[in-house]
Amino acid sequence: MKTNPGRFFEDYEVGQVIRHAVPRSVSGGERALYHALYPARHALYSSNEFARASGLPDSPIDDMAAFHIVFGKSVPDISLNAVANLGYAEARWLRPVYPGDTLRSESEVIGLKQNSSGKTGVVYVRTTGFNQHDLPVMEFVRWMMVRKNNLDAPAPEAVVPQTAAVVDPSDLVIPAGLDFSHYDFGLAGEPHRVGDYEVGERIDHVDGVTIEEAEHMMATRLWQNTSKTHFDATPRADGKRLIYGGHVISMARALSFNGLANAQMIGAINAGSHANPCFAGDTVRAWSEVLDRAEVDAPGVGALRLRLVATKGGEAFTLKGEDGKYLPHVLLDLDYWVLMPV
Amino acid sequence: MKTNPGRFFEDYEVGQVIRHAVPRSVSGGERALYHALYPARHALYSSNEFARASGLPDSPIDDMAAFHIVFGKSVPDISLNAVANLGYAEARWLRPVYPGDTLRSESEVIGLKQNSSGKTGVVYVRTTGFNQHDLPVMEFVRWMMVRKNNLDAPAPEAVVPQTAAVVDPSDLVIPAGLDFSHYDFGLAGEPHRVGDYEVGERIDHVDGVTIEEAEHMMATRLWQNTSKTHFDATPRADGKRLIYGGHVISMARALSFNGLANAQMIGAINAGSHANPCFAGDTVRAWSEVLDRAEVDAPGVGALRLRLVATKGGEAFTLKGEDGKYLPHVLLDLDYWVLMPV
Amino acid sequence: MKTNPGRFFEDYEVGQVIRHAVPRSVSGGERALYHALYPARHALYSSNEFARASGLPDSPIDDMAAFHIVFGKSVPDISLNAVANLGYAEARWLRPVYPGDTLRSESEVIGLKQNSSGKTGVVYVRTTGFNQHDLPVMEFVRWMMVRKNNLDAPAPEAVVPQTAAVVDPSDLVIPAGLDFSHYDFGLAGEPHRVGDYEVGERIDHVDGVTIEEAEHMMATRLWQNTSKTHFDATPRADGKRLIYGGHVISMARALSFNGLANAQMIGAINAGSHANPCFAGDTVRAWSEVLDRAEVDAPGVGALRLRLVATKGGEAFTLKGEDGKYLPHVLLDLDYWVLMPV
Repeated sequence: MKTNPGRFFEDYEVGQVIRHAVPRSVSGGERALYHALYPARHALYSSNEFARASGLPDSPIDDMAAFHIVFGKSVPDISLNAVANLGYAEARWLRPVYPGDTLRSESEVIGLKQNSSGKTGVVYVRTTGFNQHDLPVMEFVRWMMVRKNNLDAPAPEAVVPQTAAVVDPSDLVIPAGLDFSHYDFGLAGEPHRVGDYEVGERIDHVDGVTIEEAEHMMATRLWQNTSKTHFDATPRADGKRLIYGGHVISMARALSFNGLANAQMIGAINAGSHANPCFAGDTVRAWSEVLDRAEVDAPGVGALRLRLVATKGGEAFTLKGEDGKYLPHVLLDLDYWVLMPV
Repeated sequence: MKTNPGRFFEDYEVGQVIRHAVPRSVSGGERALYHALYPARHALYSSNEFARASGLPDSPIDDMAAFHIVFGKSVPDISLNAVANLGYAEARWLRPVYPGDTLRSESEVIGLKQNSSGKTGVVYVRTTGFNQHDLPVMEFVRWMMVRKNNLDAPAPEAVVPQTAAVVDPSDLVIPAGLDFSHYDFGLAGEPHRVGDYEVGERIDHVDGVTIEEAEHMMATRLWQNTSKTHFDATPRADGKRLIYGGHVISMARALSFNGLANAQMIGAINAGSHANPCFAGDTVRAWSEVLDRAEVDAPGVGALRLRLVATKGGEAFTLKGEDGKYLPHVLLDLDYWVLMPV
Repeated sequence: MKTNPGRFFEDYEVGQVIRHAVPRSVSGGERALYHALYPARHALYSSNEFARASGLPDSPIDDMAAFHIVFGKSVPDISLNAVANLGYAEARWLRPVYPGDTLRSESEVIGLKQNSSGKTGVVYVRTTGFNQHDLPVMEFVRWMMVRKNNLDAPAPEAVVPQTAAVVDPSDLVIPAGLDFSHYDFGLAGEPHRVGDYEVGERIDHVDGVTIEEAEHMMATRLWQNTSKTHFDATPRADGKRLIYGGHVISMARALSFNGLANAQMIGAINAGSHANPCFAGDTVRAWSEVLDRAEVDAPGVGALRLRLVATKGGEAFTLKGEDGKYLPHVLLDLDYWVLMPV
């Protein structure tokens, strides 16, 4: 068979490195599309001059766009036969991606655990994106439940990797040259610095965006994520497509500008849950909670750890029911570090 | 509160200059998206070679794209609490915007008049867009009705600015170097020169485009106009969003290519009314009426003053009822100057 | 009348050369949009580095994007009054199109044959696209049925051009420098070479994409194809628009990556039929059949002749009924040559 059947649980082994296909060059086109698809307004990604005044050579491609490209490349090799995405950890941005760069990615299998049913297992991978100079631009760990094809295949020795619950702020990689000493709060849109946010503070980002099929498909294709569930309406009676979870992350992150305009760069994602599926017609809103603050080693730059919650209706600041499960209106619960002026 | 509450009527004073946030760099990406979102075919904005043959260094970003970006930046500061946009005047394009340029904008409050209800007032601003060299690229006056938050705030002294009903052709700013002496009418698509249009002549632009939610939202986000009414379907029972008036202007202007292919550049907008709201599913058509002709000081270049009317059905060339009000199928009534070959 | 009425059958004569309007410059924006609109993953069009490793100066614009632009320019002059597109032949790609290039096109009338009804006739044209150096980038023959306006106009002498049923592989134009000797099959996504495909072999490309109105309109506008049937919903009771046939070609070609990842470049289209119309809501799938293999004169490069069939449901590998007519689920039947590693 010439087409890609994807890997099944028994096809993975710990230590295996899978080099993903189809490197991708980015340009101002990807940048413009990111702004057309999401209400993105963080100044560092909008203005070359603002980026240069912050010590970078030019305005990079949005951090989440870099994530989506690196992630998208891994889909045909890693998650084609996945039943469920179970989690993320230790996502770190290592180097900005600029127009003209070409990204590829590879994944190392770092854990395997067959489920007691014998029909599925959990696969843990660390995926790393590289630019055209073979320098890493970002990395993340994810784990998912994958079907077995040959149920007679023996269970592998169980290896469950230890990942950090939270990326230590000292492990955040600050882009070379980043300097917020001369930050223009007026141009950025808000006056709030790291020190203006209190741990425990919560922000309702107010605005909402109603999602369209055409938009999430354009976004998901742009990252060359070809998981058929996002494009093919025929399996569902209502003709809807399951929206790529990363589309919800980007939408919520962009909406969070209103109250977090200075949370310019994403340093790390500590953890993330896609609590409920998102469909066209849902109106996505977002709220944030300040989880921690930290110092980092760059002039004028500090770090804020945030919970970013995306919802489709429902009250802001509600998250889980008495049973400890996410309420039905919660789409995303993301724990991440941002870099912002002190 | 960390989120932006917007300004209320009592927060403005005449002479105040508001510097708008989030500068924006443009590239070939914005240009390609403009062509994907509107049926734009004016050759000067489509071909670098055509632009160079017309004396410009390169093909600029569409004039209306420049307007949308400059306008979009002003929304969070100026019109978040606006009840109604009441009018435009004295919009002039001062300098073409090229891929690689970064735009920011600022607004000066030039008039204030509290309404007799005491609950709202009219705010007049002159908004100017600047490129990365702090050179102005365009300017316009607009006025809108804005809510008071504190009803006890005293009424300001009424100041109503005098704006020109029509930009004098001698005030049109011709881009440096513009020269239509060697204009290629074949490549541009039509043979008609300024002198071929008679004052009073009317042109039905024939074609129609049915509007989709995904398209107007992508367009409006691309200009970083985050007015929630364009994105959030929840306030309306029919799940529709109010379409940004600028989307209708761009659509009508692009449709007007068929009959006005040589109306290459917009010199000024004299006045504009969004006569009725536009919603997804409407099929936008356009017709034009020639209002005036003028000479300008550039080789081979002349000016034509046009009325551009966008409709959603209804007969062409019908505009207002016997009561003097716009008929329900009229979306836009725009009075503007174009630059075209003599 | 200032608007374009289009040409009628009696307005054509054999030998006439029509220079089409509105040259178009392309950039990374067009490239990014192509990837947003189609699930395109062929590495040569995705990565500058992959293209350079294949001997090209940079990653070109997708071959089908070049076709769409050249074709789109011809619509106002050639097919505005066409009743039906009847066929394509001898489409050849002559030179890659790169970001920064500007395309224009012209058509030569190579055949005319009035129908026995006296109300319509068949017009045959050879359309050629040129870049800014006046070098041809592609050419194709198409023929369509066009209405007469003046039924009294005399029938022209019938001239029916002889076109090749299949482009001879020796007539394929290989881009200067193309070299697949050091081809990285891992980065390209599949291990299959020309020699791995057997004549008669059929491949079901598995994936499906449900089509949205917003997407096909953005695509069609991007190529400046302004045929109103693709944009104006009002003529049809169901509010749908007829989808540009080229949108289906691009969708099917992108879907064929899964099984034909190394079919990097299109060399020629031998013939193509839009078997049934495509509408929003249809889920497009694709299958291919290997028709021939050939050698070409470039290091490491070979040619494969393929049938590419797009469907909207129905079983793969079914094409025509017992009456010899296309089955209702078949959208496209395309016969084309690709260049791939040997």
